[in-house]
Amino acid sequence: MNRLYHVPLSPFCRKVRLVLAEKKIEVELVEERYWEQDPDFLRRNPAGKVPVLRMNDRIMAESQAICEYLEEKYPAPPLFPRDPEGRYEVRRLCGWFDDKFHREVTANLLYERVNKKLTKQGYPESQNVKAGARAIKYHLDYMSWLLDQRRWLAGDAMSLADFAAAAHVSALDYISDVDWNRSPNVKDWYAKIKSRPAFRGLLADQVPGFPPSRQYADLDF
Amino acid sequence: MNRLYHVPLSPFCRKVRLVLAEKKIEVELVEERYWEQDPDFLRRNPAGKVPVLRMNDRIMAESQAICEYLEEKYPAPPLFPRDPEGRYEVRRLCGWFDDKFHREVTANLLYERVNKKLTKQGYPESQNVKAGARAIKYHLDYMSWLLDQRRWLAGDAMSLADFAAAAHVSALDYISDVDWNRSPNVKDWYAKIKSRPAFRGLLADQVPGFPPSRQYADLDF
Repeated sequence: MNRLYHVPLSPFCRKVRLVLAEKKIEVELVEERYWEQDPDFLRRNPAGKVPVLRMNDRIMAESQAICEYLEEKYPAPPLFPRDPEGRYEVRRLCGWFDDKFHREVTANLLYERVNKKLTKQGYPESQNVKAGARAIKYHLDYMSWLLDQRRWLAGDAMSLADFAAAAHVSALDYISDVDWNRSPNVKDWYAKIKSRPAFRGLLADQVPGFPPSRQYADLDF
Repeated sequence: MNRLYHVPLSPFCRKVRLVLAEKKIEVELVEERYWEQDPDFLRRNPAGKVPVLRMNDRIMAESQAICEYLEEKYPAPPLFPRDPEGRYEVRRLCGWFDDKFHREVTANLLYERVNKKLTKQGYPESQNVKAGARAIKYHLDYMSWLLDQRRWLAGDAMSLADFAAAAHVSALDYISDVDWNRSPNVKDWYAKIKSRPAFRGLLADQVPGFPPSRQYADLDF
C-alpha cells in the first residue's frame, strides 16, 4: 500500500494529496510529527520535511518533485499542458505559491497561528500576522487578475498550478484567513476546485485544538 | 537578443546561467538591483525576484521553471535523464539545494555577509553566520555521501542537480566559505564542474567591494 507521511494543514502535503486523489492513486495517510525529527523519519527523508511518499518501495520527498514524478508516471488525467510555454507557466505559478505566497502569507498566518502552537514554539508574533493579512490581499488580487484572462490560473485547463494555489488557500480558509468577498472570480475558481471529488479528503481534515472555520467544508460558502 | 536580468552571486541566477551556457544559448547579462523594486522590473516580474529571462519576446521568472523550459525547448545536451525515477531524483536535489541548502547555508552566509551590505540592510548577525558555518559541514557531508554512490549528485550523468548545487557552492566559494579539505570527493566533483566551459562566465564575476577568494577562479584549487 502506498503511504503518505503528512500533516493535515501543510500546503505542500495538500498539493500532493490533491494530485494523488485526482489521479485516483490510493494512499494511506500517516500523520508525521516532523518537528520531533524522529530518527526513523529522518532515515526516510534526511531533509526532515513532509510530505514523504512511500510508493512501490520507493521513498520520495520534495512536493514539486513528487508531483512531477506522478505526472510522468500516471499521466491521466493530465495536470500539465503539452506545450513548453504552457508547462513553464504552470511551473512558474507553482513556484509563485510555494515560494512567494508561502513566505509572505502562509508562514505569517498559518505557521504563526497554528504551527507555533502545535510545535510548542511560542505565541504568534502580531507583526507577522499583520504582514500576512496585508500580503494575502495582494495575492488574491493577483489571482483575480490572472483569472480575468484565463479560466484557470495557468491557462484554460486546470493544472498543478491550481492545486498548488488551492493547497495554500484551503489551509488558510481552515483558519478563516481568506476574505471571499474580495474577488468574485477567485471565489468562483475556489468553488469549482473545492467541489472536485479530489478535494473531499482535505475538507474532512480536523486538527485537534483548531476547529475548522464555518465555511471550510461548505461547498456553498 | 536574449537577456538575463540577474545579480552575479545569486545562486538562482547562476543555475540559469549555467544551463544557458551549457546549451550554448547566447544571452546578454544585465545586472538588476531587484531590491530597489523598480517599476519597470516589477512589470517584467511581479514576484520582484531575479533571475528574469527575456527570450523570443517572452519574459520568464522562477529559476526552476526557466530551467525546465530550457530543457524542454533545447534538449541538447540533456540535463535530465529519461526515466521518471531519475528525473525525480534530479528535481528532489534541486529542491534540496534551492530550499534547504539555501535556507540553512546560503541565506546565513552569503546573504548575511554580502547581500545585507549591498542592499544597505545593516550588518551580519553573527548568530546566523555561525549557524550557516555549522550547516554547510552537514551539507558537504551529504554531498559526499551521495558522491560515494554515484559519479554525479543525482546519478551517473551530470544533471541540473549538479548545476543547482554548484550555483550555491560557487557563490559561497567566492566569499571563502567552503572548506575544500573536508571531503575529497566533493572537491573532485567541483573541480570537474568548475572546469566546464559553461562555468567560465561565473568565474569571471566581480562584485565591487567584495573581491573573490584566492581560489575562486583557480581550476587547480
